[in-house]
Order: sequence, then C-alpha cells, then structure tokens
Amino acid sequence: MKVWKLKLHQVLNEADTKSGLVYEYVLFTAILLAVASVALESIESVGKKYCQILIIVQGIILVGFVIEYVLRIIIIDQPSKFIFSFYGIIDLVAILALSSVMYNDHLYFLVVIRSLRFLRVFKVLKYIQFRTESKAILIALKQSRTKIIIFVFAFLLLCTCFGTIMFLIEPKESGFTSIPMSIYWCIVTLTTVGYGDITPTTIPGKFIASLIMLIGYGIIAVSALIVTSEASKQIAAGEHESNTQTCSHCLNSEHKDEARYCHKCGNSLEDV
Amino acid sequence: MKVWKLKLHQVLNEADTKSGLVYEYVLFTAILLAVASVALESIESVGKKYCQILIIVQGIILVGFVIEYVLRIIIIDQPSKFIFSFYGIIDLVAILALSSVMYNDHLYFLVVIRSLRFLRVFKVLKYIQFRTESKAILIALKQSRTKIIIFVFAFLLLCTCFGTIMFLIEPKESGFTSIPMSIYWCIVTLTTVGYGDITPTTIPGKFIASLIMLIGYGIIAVSALIVTSEASKQIAAGEHESNTQTCSHCLNSEHKDEARYCHKCGNSLEDV
Amino acid sequence: MKVWKLKLHQVLNEADTKSGLVYEYVLFTAILLAVASVALESIESVGKKYCQILIIVQGIILVGFVIEYVLRIIIIDQPSKFIFSFYGIIDLVAILALSSVMYNDHLYFLVVIRSLRFLRVFKVLKYIQFRTESKAILIALKQSRTKIIIFVFAFLLLCTCFGTIMFLIEPKESGFTSIPMSIYWCIVTLTTVGYGDITPTTIPGKFIASLIMLIGYGIIAVSALIVTSEASKQIAAGEHESNTQTCSHCLNSEHKDEARYCHKCGNSLEDV
Amino acid sequence: MKVWKLKLHQVLNEADTKSGLVYEYVLFTAILLAVASVALESIESVGKKYCQILIIVQGIILVGFVIEYVLRIIIIDQPSKFIFSFYGIIDLVAILALSSVMYNDHLYFLVVIRSLRFLRVFKVLKYIQFRTESKAILIALKQSRTKIIIFVFAFLLLCTCFGTIMFLIEPKESGFTSIPMSIYWCIVTLTTVGYGDITPTTIPGKFIASLIMLIGYGIIAVSALIVTSEASKQIAAGEHESNTQTCSHCLNSEHKDEARYCHKCGNSLEDV
Repeated sequence: MKVWKLKLHQVLNEADTKSGLVYEYVLFTAILLAVASVALESIESVGKKYCQILIIVQGIILVGFVIEYVLRIIIIDQPSKFIFSFYGIIDLVAILALSSVMYNDHLYFLVVIRSLRFLRVFKVLKYIQFRTESKAILIALKQSRTKIIIFVFAFLLLCTCFGTIMFLIEPKESGFTSIPMSIYWCIVTLTTVGYGDITPTTIPGKFIASLIMLIGYGIIAVSALIVTSEASKQIAAGEHESNTQTCSHCLNSEHKDEARYCHKCGNSLEDV
Repeated sequence: MKVWKLKLHQVLNEADTKSGLVYEYVLFTAILLAVASVALESIESVGKKYCQILIIVQGIILVGFVIEYVLRIIIIDQPSKFIFSFYGIIDLVAILALSSVMYNDHLYFLVVIRSLRFLRVFKVLKYIQFRTESKAILIALKQSRTKIIIFVFAFLLLCTCFGTIMFLIEPKESGFTSIPMSIYWCIVTLTTVGYGDITPTTIPGKFIASLIMLIGYGIIAVSALIVTSEASKQIAAGEHESNTQTCSHCLNSEHKDEARYCHKCGNSLEDV
Repeated sequence: MKVWKLKLHQVLNEADTKSGLVYEYVLFTAILLAVASVALESIESVGKKYCQILIIVQGIILVGFVIEYVLRIIIIDQPSKFIFSFYGIIDLVAILALSSVMYNDHLYFLVVIRSLRFLRVFKVLKYIQFRTESKAILIALKQSRTKIIIFVFAFLLLCTCFGTIMFLIEPKESGFTSIPMSIYWCIVTLTTVGYGDITPTTIPGKFIASLIMLIGYGIIAVSALIVTSEASKQIAAGEHESNTQTCSHCLNSEHKDEARYCHKCGNSLEDV
Repeated sequence: MKVWKLKLHQVLNEADTKSGLVYEYVLFTAILLAVASVALESIESVGKKYCQILIIVQGIILVGFVIEYVLRIIIIDQPSKFIFSFYGIIDLVAILALSSVMYNDHLYFLVVIRSLRFLRVFKVLKYIQFRTESKAILIALKQSRTKIIIFVFAFLLLCTCFGTIMFLIEPKESGFTSIPMSIYWCIVTLTTVGYGDITPTTIPGKFIASLIMLIGYGIIAVSALIVTSEASKQIAAGEHESNTQTCSHCLNSEHKDEARYCHKCGNSLEDV
C-alpha cells in the first residue's frame, strides 16, 4: 500500500522524477486548455457556435481536476494540511468555478458565482516555480521590498499632488471631473501609458502634464543613464590597467602605467 | 512639568519609541482619511449624497490637526523654530485649507482659497522619510544632480528642435497649431507617453515622429542593453572564479584559484 | 578552375576580404532597394504613378538575386548544403516572392503568394551579423534564456488574471467584449503602450487599470532604481579598494595587491 | 590693443573666468528669450496681441547677436576659422533667421526662409557642454557606437518585418493603408508610445500586436531585470569578499573571511 502511495506522491508532487515531469506537462496542458476554453466561450460568436465542444472539453478537464484533487488528499498523511494550503484552496476553487461555468446555461442563478471563474487561472501559478531561476528573482524582490514600498508610496504621493493640481487647473469638460479621476489620469501619464481618453486642454495644464511626463520618463531614463555612465567609467578605468611593459628579468607583464620597476622582482623596467 | 513635555515630545517627534510609532500610524491614517474625504467630495454624485458624513469626518480630523499643531508649539522651547519650519508651514496651511473646505458650502467667496486644498497632501511628505532606505535614494539623486540637469536640459533642447521642425512640416489642421503646442506633442512622444490627441498626418511628419520615438525609446533601451552586455561580460570573467580544489584534511572546497594551502586547516592542497 | 571558384567564394562569403566587403555593400543596397520598392508600391498613389519604374527596379534586382543564387550553388562543393541551409531557403523564397510581385498585375491568382513578400526582408537578417558585437548580444540573450522565459510566462499569467478580472468588472460597452479582448487590453496597458482604443469606464475598472499600469511601470523603474542605488553603493565602497601597502623608500602607496617591490623606486615592499 | 582683444576673448570664449561666466549667463538668457519670443509669436492669439512687444524684444536680441558676431570675428586672428566653424555658421544662420522673422509681416515672400527659424535653437547647443559631465556621457555614447548602430538596425528590421505582416493581415480600413504606414504603426507600438491613431481590428492582428508590444517592453524590462538579479548576486558574493587579514609569513593579503591559514604558504593566520 505504501509503495503505491509513494509512487503517486512522486508523480503528483516531485517534478524532478521522470513520471513527475510527464505529469507536470499533462497538468500544464490541461490548465492551459481550461483557461483557453473559458476565454473562447466569452467571445459571443465563438461561444454560441462551439458551445457543445467547449462544454465537453471543460467536462473532461473537470473530471481530471476532481480525480487529481481526491488523489492528492488520499496520498497525504494529514489531508487537512493540503486542503487548507494555498494550492489546496486554489485547486478546490478551480473545480467549483469550472463546474459552475459548465452549468450556467441551465442554472442561471449561478451567474454570480461565475465571478470566481478567473480564479482557475491561479492554478497556473504553480508553474511559476518551475525553475530555480524564478526563486532568485523572488529573493531579489524580497531583498528590495523596502525600496519597492518607498517607490510605490512616493509614486502615489506624486500622483495625488499632481492629480489635485490638474483638477484645479483643468475645466471639467476636459475629463478632469473629480480628484480621483485626475489622479487616475496622472497615473496613466506618469507610467507613460498615455491612453489619451483624458488629455489636458489648457496651456498651464499642458505645461504641468509635460512636467509629469518628464518625471515619469526621467525615473527610468536617468537611472539607466547613471548606471551606463558608471559602467563606462569602469571600462575607462580598466583600459589603463593593462599595458605592454614586460619585466626583462621575470617576464611579469602586468604593470601599472607609471611603473618604473617590476613589482614582482624589483628589476628596473626602464633602461634594459 | 518637564517630564510631561518630554513624554509628549517622544510621542510627536520620535517615531522610534513605542508610543511615537503608534502616534505615527494614527496621524498617517488621519491624513489618508483627510485626503480621501476631499477627493471623494470632488466627485459630484458622491459629494452631494454623503456631504454630511464627509463634513463630520473632516471636522474631526480638523480638530485633531489643530490640537496636534498647538501641542507641537507648546512642547518646543523656541516655538518660532517650528512655526517657520517646512513642516510647521505645511501643518498650518493644511489646517487653513481643511477649514476653508468645510465652510465652502456657505462661504462661496472662499472658493478661491480652495486651491490651497491640495497642500494638505504635503503632510504625507513627512512619511517619505519613514525608512533610512529613502535617504540612500535621495543621496544617490544628489550625487547625480549634475547628470540629471544635463539630461533634462538636453531633453528639452531636443523637444524644442523637433517641435519647431514638426510645426513647420505639419499643417495646422493636424493639431500642430503653434510651436509650444508642437513642443508639447514632442514631449508626449519622446517620453513614450503617446496620448494620440495630436498625431502627425503627413509622410515627412510621420518620418520625423518615428525618429523622435526611436530616440525616446533608445535612451532607455540602449542604456539598458549596454549595462546588460557589460554585466554578461563580467559574468563570463567571473565563471573562472570557483574551482574544484578540495582539502584532503578538512574537506573544505572553497579555495581561490592560486591557493596552495587550505585556508581552513593549513593542510597542503598540492601533494595530498 | 579552382582558382576562379576560390575567388568567387571570397567575394560571396568572406566579408573580411576587400572584394568581399565591396560585394556586401552592393548586396545590402540591392536588398534595401528591393524592400523600399515593394513598400512604395503598396502606397496606392505612388504604386499607380511610378508603377513602371518600380517594375524595372524590381526586375534588375530580381535578375541580380537569381545570378547570385546560381553562383552560390556553383561554387559550393555540396550544393544541397547551401540549398537547405537557412540562408539558402531565404534566398530562394525572396526570389520567388519578388517574381510573384512583378507579375501580379497580370497573374491575379498569384495574389495569395504575395503574402510571402515580406520574407524578402529576411535577406537583410544576414547583415545583422556584420559585427562581432552583435554576437556578444546574442550570447547574452542565450545565457539569460531561462530568465526571459520566466519573465514572458509571468507576464502572460498576469495579463490573463487581470484581463479576466477586467472582463468581469467592465461593461461590454467599454470595449471589454470578451476575455481574449480584455487580455489584449491588459497587454497594451502592462507594456505601457496604451493605445486608448479600449479604456476602463467604471471606477473599480479604473482602479485595477491603475494597479496594472503601476506594475508595468514598476517592473522597469524599480529594477532601474535598484541597480542605480547598488551602483552608487559600489562607487562609495570602491573608493577604498586599493590596498594599504606603502613603499618605505618613496612613500608611494598605490600598489597592486600582489606587488612585492615598489613600481616607482624598485624598493622591496616585503621585508623592511 | 592686444590687451583689449585678450580681455574680450576671455569674456566671449572663456567661461571659466569671472567676466566670461557672467557673459555666458547673459547670452543664455538672450537665446532663451529669442526662442521663447518666436515660440509665442507662433500662437495665433498671442502673436496678434503682443506683436509689437515681441518685435521689439527680437530686435534688441538681433542687435546683440550681430554685435557679438562682429566682435567674435574681430578678436580672432584668422576670422575664416571662426566663420566656417560649426558655431560660426550657427551664429550667422541664427542672425539671418531672426531678421527674416522680424520682417515677415511686410516681406511675405520671405516666408520660405522662415523654415530656417528653428536653427536658432541650435545656438543653445553650445551650452550642452557647460559641464565636463556631459563630455563623459558623449564619450560613453561614442564607445558604444557599434552597439547603438546594431540596436537601431535590428529595431528597424523588426519594424519592417512586423509592419509588412500587419499590412497583409489587417484590412485597409483599420489604417494599415500601405507598408510604410504599417511600419510607422509598428515603430509607434514597439517604442511603447502607442498613439492609438492606427490600431489593429482583427484577431490575428491583435495577436501579432501583442507580440510586438511584448518585444518592445521586453527589450527594456528583461535587460533591467537581468542587471538587477546580477547586481543582487554580486552583493551576496561581495559581502564576503574583502578583509584585512594578512599572512605574517608571505604577506599575502587576499584571504577569505573564514580563513584560518594562508592559502599561499600554509602559515597560520590566527596567532602570530
């Protein structure tokens, strides 16, 4: 009995075994299919035409998800540990959401629960860890958590300030109907997204908008430029490090530019 | 008397004490509430509906701000030092602005003073210093002040040049009605914001617009690429750093390339 | 016979010989002309007016491309190796596409094959290797392949999540007609492109849109900021990098780490 | 006579002397005024209203520019060297352009020459060199010239490829009326500017547009991410790098932090 459990555990949880890796790919495909079928169903013309095929695909995936969920509970010694874990909850919600989607043609009152639909997407989150590299990025993010918080805070502060100024300057006809709307416009501008649904129309408004853009662009560009020029400095410094002076005594060739004596054997480098 | 003052000083000014930290959070929440209530009031539909609730909230916060302001003056030995400091002025303006907002339903002629409203936002500026990390960023900004000035100057010069060129090339119907308007368009394009309220319509105009976009994108992308390839060079150089030498005595395996003796136990690495 | 082949091989394949370099420039110009003539032909007004000139230009280039293709087959010992190589296929497709374009005024049923037209552009790809520098960039890209895959994957996952949320929040009238459409909008926003053809209209929609923009902007800006502040730290640290060895004879203090003799006066640094 | 020339030379050309610096600021203000007055004149409403004031300002500046130009010719030993230098030509063109602007209300046939107007802006170019820092940036640009060329080339190649694909996929009604227009759209998208004047309407078109955006964003974001994670690696590695331990036997000083014996001679580092 235990061997059977161990084998299953390897398949379901250990992606570094051969059977585990195969399973990972199968699950990955199933999730992609589930997400794609829900996405396709939302397109009105496609949803009507291929309704039946999509329901069959979703049904098969749903059965698969349920079997997987049950198996995961069976093989673990403390089922509650899995059920209340992050992925346990995601798995359950995904199953519930998928089943609700399948019946929404008949049980219209479940339409509200459809809003849980997108949660299935989180199943894919598991695969974000598929390489150790991603962990390195997560660690880097954690290390600079404070910096990110300060950045976001300063960013929102800037948006609030400039958003309020723009609300006072621009007429309501330009789209700056309220302070939150102006702050939204400011975020759109400062991030250099620039939809163009709201744009300043007065001259002082355009002036401040230019300033906001310059700040938004500058945060990235100036940072990049500073790093670049520092890098070029280091290159420039590095270029003087090597010269062709070679000691005639010990053949050591790595001398400073202004060296007059070999720093290895003390032999004069100049007149030999 | 002095103990009472000292205690209050700790609460109001020293965020590293326990009571000070609690106060910081209370003040932070109050400022957030004040900003949010003013922002919500500016939305017409919300402003009318929840007018009374918002006035009550603003009233409570105003009383709090006034008490805090008075206390800060009392505890300091030289009150003028606080009153004319940056935060002293901000605090006072915030109180005046908030009180003006509260009465603007009755005293319509105070609407002009409402423009000081956004200054309350600056109260939040205090919290920008809530971690030492932010100081490091400010120092980095100061160190590269000259670079930033040159960058902004070169950026505006580019915008003036290209703006004037576009004004001459494009017809006024495209939106390039004046040189300042063209410079504004150029800033929108060079920062990659791209609202789309003004777009070139002629072929040479589109050609120059493409050039401007390329420059705007290139400043960031080329800088990033240069840094990246330099970094990859350093990685290539760094790959030779670790070797497989292992001490036969203590099994320590992290040796320098030129190491001849183990730096942990002094055992020779060369001949067993 | 062999000398003739070798000479031709040098011209066609070895850009570092003089005749080879001249040929490279001729071919580069020919490809540019071919691309430009096809591009110009697609502009309706130009295509009708200068039709004959463009056909003549395309004809000359086509003949040149055919001759080059034949010569490349002749000079190689194993013609199949060239024919089925990447550039061999590109060359052939370019010739076929160019000839189909030339006759499309008479042979209307070849219009479908016109879709291969753009493949000629790939001929230019050869020149991407014109400097060794480009190889360094390609190596850097290869080394960070895993990081790029993770990044793209995480990016698409984010877009799917936020796209689905926006589809549920926003009314269909705003343009969020289906999940794929919402994902498309999300990509437009997260990359800070921001066309503005689809924009959120509800308040929660605008709130989530702001969040998406902040993430999109943050990925670049926060990375750039972290690198910058790290760089400034290293500069501060680097100022103390040089060691404390000082010559007892001339008091020169800038020595290499492994220096045993002063490089200024030849005095031994070690035992004094 | 020579002393007078020398004094004038100092004022006009040597910004590091006191009188030279004062002159620099005066000239800088004059150029700014000239640019601003021409820009303001182009705004129709302002141009009509303040016509006379602007003409007077431009007149005074023109006289100043002429006097300066004449003085620069007088003080130099070989006048031709200045007249045909970059700044000599810019100065002359600026004077001619400014005078043409002043008379364009009377001499309408000079409107064509107005196109030289923007050249005055180049006068400001002189000030781009006002700090040595800017030279460092220019050197960095020169050093990475090859990289920039490859980048621009690869960028335009991508735009041509994707532009042609989009022209074939999208209907002409979407705005993709010709290959050059599609390439223009592609540049707008790849640089993340995103005007929104031309947007894809078909599903495959939107799919490829998403791909283009991802590439455009990825070039910056991936580079930034790679640099960041490398930087965080180096920080982790660097924390153990330098210490001041020196072997008392061989004076080797590059030891690991946890080193207890010298890795060069095997001597104990601890108790000597």
